[in-house]
Amino acid sequence: MRVGVIGAGQLARMMIPAAIELGVELRVLAEGEGMAASLAADHVGDYTDPDTVLAFAREVDVVTFDHEHVPQHVLRTLVDAGVAVHPGPDALRFAQDKLLMRERLAELGLPVPEWARVATPDELDAFIAEHGGAAVVKTPRGGYDGKGVRVVRGAAEVAEWFATVGEDGRDGALLVEELVDFRRELAQLVARRPSGEVVAWPLVETVQVGGVCSEVIAPAPRSAGRLADVAADVAIAVAEGVGVTGVLAVEMFETVDDRVLVNELAMRPHNSGHWTMDGATTSQFEQHLRAVLDLPLGGTGCHDEWAVMVNLLGGPAEGTLTDRYADALAGHPTVKVHNYGKAPRPGRKVGHVTAIGPDLDEAVYEARAAAAALQD
Amino acid sequence: MRVGVIGAGQLARMMIPAAIELGVELRVLAEGEGMAASLAADHVGDYTDPDTVLAFAREVDVVTFDHEHVPQHVLRTLVDAGVAVHPGPDALRFAQDKLLMRERLAELGLPVPEWARVATPDELDAFIAEHGGAAVVKTPRGGYDGKGVRVVRGAAEVAEWFATVGEDGRDGALLVEELVDFRRELAQLVARRPSGEVVAWPLVETVQVGGVCSEVIAPAPRSAGRLADVAADVAIAVAEGVGVTGVLAVEMFETVDDRVLVNELAMRPHNSGHWTMDGATTSQFEQHLRAVLDLPLGGTGCHDEWAVMVNLLGGPAEGTLTDRYADALAGHPTVKVHNYGKAPRPGRKVGHVTAIGPDLDEAVYEARAAAAALQD
Repeated sequence: MRVGVIGAGQLARMMIPAAIELGVELRVLAEGEGMAASLAADHVGDYTDPDTVLAFAREVDVVTFDHEHVPQHVLRTLVDAGVAVHPGPDALRFAQDKLLMRERLAELGLPVPEWARVATPDELDAFIAEHGGAAVVKTPRGGYDGKGVRVVRGAAEVAEWFATVGEDGRDGALLVEELVDFRRELAQLVARRPSGEVVAWPLVETVQVGGVCSEVIAPAPRSAGRLADVAADVAIAVAEGVGVTGVLAVEMFETVDDRVLVNELAMRPHNSGHWTMDGATTSQFEQHLRAVLDLPLGGTGCHDEWAVMVNLLGGPAEGTLTDRYADALAGHPTVKVHNYGKAPRPGRKVGHVTAIGPDLDEAVYEARAAAAALQD
Repeated sequence: MRVGVIGAGQLARMMIPAAIELGVELRVLAEGEGMAASLAADHVGDYTDPDTVLAFAREVDVVTFDHEHVPQHVLRTLVDAGVAVHPGPDALRFAQDKLLMRERLAELGLPVPEWARVATPDELDAFIAEHGGAAVVKTPRGGYDGKGVRVVRGAAEVAEWFATVGEDGRDGALLVEELVDFRRELAQLVARRPSGEVVAWPLVETVQVGGVCSEVIAPAPRSAGRLADVAADVAIAVAEGVGVTGVLAVEMFETVDDRVLVNELAMRPHNSGHWTMDGATTSQFEQHLRAVLDLPLGGTGCHDEWAVMVNLLGGPAEGTLTDRYADALAGHPTVKVHNYGKAPRPGRKVGHVTAIGPDLDEAVYEARAAAAALQD
């Protein structure tokens, strides 16, 4: 069994251990040399070039992704050539275009923030005026980790986005959403295989700093019962309604008035699911491989009461993460360290740590302290 | 940080995921193409040739092993050249020569079966006569998985061993041991780093069939308290007394009169420790890397009450393990499958499965049933 991954970042890297254990051969098409998944990156090439991607795809049983940026025309070339692509282009376009995603979720009757397609500054200002004087504007395509997302009080603050949004030849429009008054952010991870089976891990709480995931607590505190059920139902409805195959992360807001609203979708293993590597029966990386190969999915139970994941953002100011191991590992022998093998750079995701245990406060402390010892 | 592994079997293969997560670069010197650890096998060469091994060693920070068969003169060449070798030759010789091992354990005052060095059939027959008419004869070097071990009632049964044992230029002698009346077999896994730290995982029970490990139960049932303490003390005494660095497995007999006797040593990750990959905070493969790099060792606690590992011996009569995934994974979604990527062959270790849980009978059932679904 051979799986081809387009993109060689840390998500592809973390698929390698799962592939080794399952006896699945993993091949990676890297954007360049020295990427995080370089161990399995036997191809280097441009993922926007149909010939390059098709040649790569011919050598594997199924193509999947480290990111959602492969253009639709490239994906269609693969499908037309008979290549198994999971998730497929019909699903991926909803992860690639936030306006399409909002439209589709609305069609499915799923709970989303109030939103509108705005093609002009006047339309945006009208939406802002109707929604309390502030709103969130998003470029429909190309954003990640907080890029392409801005809270504004007037259209002038995103004038340059209006100027450029039509440049790719599509109808130029931005997505605007109400500024949701949320209590916290949640994420629901599910996996779906082509033949239909769907499984859900426990709902988690995510903490974002500057638009970038900082911490994840699994399960989300005070989520047992109705909240967990609603979140799982919503995520499964998204997976089925959008036709996602593989792992799907549904980022959600829990509002101050106890609603759950879908924020963003990621159709691949996701930062909110890294805790599964150490805290769950089946990691999201193993599950993604099982799902895209249309194999039966694995259990999603937890090893302990709590799992807390803290991202390593930036890495140490001097040296590398491994330079800190002598102190960090000695002080935190039960914390699991995941090092993406990337050079430190401010804000860059260079790794993560996970602590599991029966006491939430203790797990939070251990994970944060280990992260601090590794990079602060 | 770069670790070089000599040998590319399943033990080297299972070091790769641990190395990826720790951000340690793993290089493997393989005996040939297509070995289990081929993903990291960037060198192919003869591990008995000093120049080949030294060239490999020059590119890494520390050399360690997938097996114990690297000749002493090659190991000495590395040490003389200033290469860090863990475990070192002074420790490894006790894993390479069972007579040396017995002598050393006796010097250390550790509990071992009654044994003797026998250079002639007459000496062997005398030992047998003194020990109830039967004994276990072992070739001091080169045996594994039951090979080179024979229960005999007279020296004539190992006449050909006496004929060949002196051929390697050493003093020709066999090891003979009393036939221990044991209740069961146990194994104690420990890890020791060069700067002295030692940790022990829980004592496990091992089930051998035809000299090959078939099942492991962690922790060993009815072992809490004195038995666990004695076993850990013995294994730590071995690690320190022999100067082992890295993971050490001490195979033991629990006798019918409640003694614990040391049977065999393995100075590397060991089949009796595969359960740690799914059942313990730190897997033996991660721990081995930490130990040989002289990094602080990780926690050895368990994820659940019980872990049961069942070897996949031989694989399916037709096709490969992956051909069985559709049925086996569907029926056993919580069992973890480890596929070494080897072609099936009768008796060959081609993988293992692990089940963990709060109920021992259930875990045993799940692991055995999954193993059967994968290969029977």
